[in-house]
Amino acid sequence: MLYEFLSVEKSSGVLLYEQLYDKVRLAIGKGLLKKGDKLPSIRRLSEDLSVSRTTVESAYDQLCAEGYLSNRPQRGFFVEAEQLDIPTSPSHLPSEPSRLHKTLVRYDFSSSSVDPEYTDIKFWQRLIKDVYEKPYVITSYGQPQGEKELRSALCEYSRRVRGVSADPDRIVIGAGTQALLSVLIGLLDGYGYSAAMEQGFFPQGEQIFRDFRYDITPLSADKEGIILDDSVRSRVLFVNSSGSMRGSAPIPVNKRAQIIRWAKRRDAVIIEDDFNGELRYTSKPVPALQGMCGSRVVYLGSFSKLLLPSVRISYMVLPPSLSGRYAERCSNYNQTASKAEQLALAQYISCGRLDRQLRRLRKLYSEKSAVMYASVKECFPSDTIVDVIETALCVRIKLNTETSLDELRKRAENSGIRLGKCREKNGLKYFYLSFAGIASDEIPQAVNCLYREVFQEPFVEKYH
Amino acid sequence: MLYEFLSVEKSSGVLLYEQLYDKVRLAIGKGLLKKGDKLPSIRRLSEDLSVSRTTVESAYDQLCAEGYLSNRPQRGFFVEAEQLDIPTSPSHLPSEPSRLHKTLVRYDFSSSSVDPEYTDIKFWQRLIKDVYEKPYVITSYGQPQGEKELRSALCEYSRRVRGVSADPDRIVIGAGTQALLSVLIGLLDGYGYSAAMEQGFFPQGEQIFRDFRYDITPLSADKEGIILDDSVRSRVLFVNSSGSMRGSAPIPVNKRAQIIRWAKRRDAVIIEDDFNGELRYTSKPVPALQGMCGSRVVYLGSFSKLLLPSVRISYMVLPPSLSGRYAERCSNYNQTASKAEQLALAQYISCGRLDRQLRRLRKLYSEKSAVMYASVKECFPSDTIVDVIETALCVRIKLNTETSLDELRKRAENSGIRLGKCREKNGLKYFYLSFAGIASDEIPQAVNCLYREVFQEPFVEKYH
Repeated sequence: MLYEFLSVEKSSGVLLYEQLYDKVRLAIGKGLLKKGDKLPSIRRLSEDLSVSRTTVESAYDQLCAEGYLSNRPQRGFFVEAEQLDIPTSPSHLPSEPSRLHKTLVRYDFSSSSVDPEYTDIKFWQRLIKDVYEKPYVITSYGQPQGEKELRSALCEYSRRVRGVSADPDRIVIGAGTQALLSVLIGLLDGYGYSAAMEQGFFPQGEQIFRDFRYDITPLSADKEGIILDDSVRSRVLFVNSSGSMRGSAPIPVNKRAQIIRWAKRRDAVIIEDDFNGELRYTSKPVPALQGMCGSRVVYLGSFSKLLLPSVRISYMVLPPSLSGRYAERCSNYNQTASKAEQLALAQYISCGRLDRQLRRLRKLYSEKSAVMYASVKECFPSDTIVDVIETALCVRIKLNTETSLDELRKRAENSGIRLGKCREKNGLKYFYLSFAGIASDEIPQAVNCLYREVFQEPFVEKYH
Repeated sequence: MLYEFLSVEKSSGVLLYEQLYDKVRLAIGKGLLKKGDKLPSIRRLSEDLSVSRTTVESAYDQLCAEGYLSNRPQRGFFVEAEQLDIPTSPSHLPSEPSRLHKTLVRYDFSSSSVDPEYTDIKFWQRLIKDVYEKPYVITSYGQPQGEKELRSALCEYSRRVRGVSADPDRIVIGAGTQALLSVLIGLLDGYGYSAAMEQGFFPQGEQIFRDFRYDITPLSADKEGIILDDSVRSRVLFVNSSGSMRGSAPIPVNKRAQIIRWAKRRDAVIIEDDFNGELRYTSKPVPALQGMCGSRVVYLGSFSKLLLPSVRISYMVLPPSLSGRYAERCSNYNQTASKAEQLALAQYISCGRLDRQLRRLRKLYSEKSAVMYASVKECFPSDTIVDVIETALCVRIKLNTETSLDELRKRAENSGIRLGKCREKNGLKYFYLSFAGIASDEIPQAVNCLYREVFQEPFVEKYH
């Protein structure tokens, strides 16, 4: 036998042809076999190794298919690959144990979940099941722009509930606001690669613009919303029309008109993020900015707090100019949202269930916000400032405490409490406490527990 | 009554307070009410209109909430908004009838669907149902990087089936290759904003890079794959390791090594699109390039032809350097793939069902490609060149016909035949005929019909 390294072990449990295949690759990798070397014939090697010809043939075929060997008619098999300075086998990294050591969460004040009792899981499950019972629907790709049925339903819904002026051809579906922004930003050629947005309010949006190498013009806000004047040179404005760092009072109509006039002067495009815009419960929801100036506003709508957070469907309404541009390259974008979930949502909207859900949730969140407000007022010191932030489904507390945010976060974690967004400004600490994921009747004790185990001082005495 | 335009119609069916609200907005829009004007008191107006005080109060409250009016204590309600050069109501555009006049598709040669008989719908449906029976799972947001269960399953699967070296922390899930590229490109700061890729092979990928304002360096290909030398200055290389315009022979190992050496010299990153790489049926699948150089290759994997085209889940394996960068900003990206579908897929992989499906499909597609090849050979003229393109699940035919592509497409459409990709080069016309969406026993008659109704000449005699 010419090549003693071409051996196989019959009892190893690995298929013989795979062993042989590996040995040849390894030999080439180590330089034992060099480009141009002739390999033993199939018959010869099968006799030397006492294996079937099929075994050798399979190994050689695969090696030829991958370019390690060539089969020269009438002459035999030759090494084609050169010795490589690369590993011939992938290293088998063991998958490491989960780093996410999950503590049991007793109370979730973050906005990362919703109250299971008020989701429409059963109904949604039935809709999903119905979709799966139409095989032709889920064995084919969806429309890049999103399913027509959903776009039609959203057109009607957004007009009725948010005053948005759309038609289905100008609606684009996507798996979340970021996925939509990725498509949208590609259409904004000619708007100068600079975007103005309220500082710190929507980091995920900022990230996408930065990824697209946009400059960000940070805007401040007063109690009426973002402050905008002609010193702002960007021609792309990202605005949340129903909330900001300052709170969740809707932008008053004068400010809205001012924003639109600014955009007209600058020939700018406005991207309106209407996150939870329909979830106002103390007054009728304020119509979207888009309804005032559909030719210049891109409207972004989503559903995570209305349906299930696990369903990733958002939509945007493009002004006619951008929808023309989109149509030209539509075929170059794949849809990101699940087709089955899109069709379920279309049905959910059309049969009136979303309206019903909206009514239920407005009522629920109105009650919950009142309970949370009262509980905070009761448990926390009297100098704590408490505000209800409607569309974010939370109350904000402003506290004057010496304890650092890190320390407070650590205490919360140790107590099984998940905190939401918190920040520090002008010596005050701000905490956004969401009531979305805590059941109504648990709110008082949750807030009480939060105060006692995280905020109450002197903390040291209690535990040591 | 001071303002006769503030009237309501009791029999109109529209809520009275909404009518009143609309009338005030309209009056401001028309200039009939000007900034600073005082409105009638609630009591006065309710008497004038013979409506309840609550009606007027509700309308005024809403108008105040939106900034049209202000309520000055002890003085009354005043107009705050200025006359706006904007419509006060969104125009109610009727949604136009669908432009997509759907012709019944008899035979689908495009790659837009799969054979319903060979999908795993029932099993998949059960998995989805199981997920929905765990409410805590779907009432909370998913992990931005993708569900841990799925990342672990993919780590094991991609190693075993594709020779990919990964660990779950370096895997990022997304709703399709494009969604992943959007995240990835954001991480490629410092690689010079220029990407090299095979010309015309993957327009959707090109689009994303262009949207991110990358220059594209178009590469040609010979029979072994893309041609790469030091004149290529890009430091981002996008490559499909298991197919190209030239066909679907795997890139031979020499060429692979050459690509990796090129990347090392240029300090470049390689993005390997392994589209359908596991779906080889004439030989054992060729391991992914990533296994040869995990420190420099980003691996992209997807499932659309293995599962259901309507399920949008892809994944990428980042090299350690990029995964560190990703971890820093992970929280700024939302996950795009449906959480329910991710968890179903994790289960589908872990219980071995994906392996089973892969075996079934390899066998099925091997048979179908043989039938399609034979049918084309039988029906089409003998000078037609036919190739099987494995990973694309199609055969490619090269024809010498005078008839224009447009005319051929039109004929196909009229005959209820959906054509796949076609192009013209050096006087020859290329057609990619997918067999994925046509049942095995229908292929012969589908191909026969395709030839007779679309390609056969003289076409005129037959129909006129």
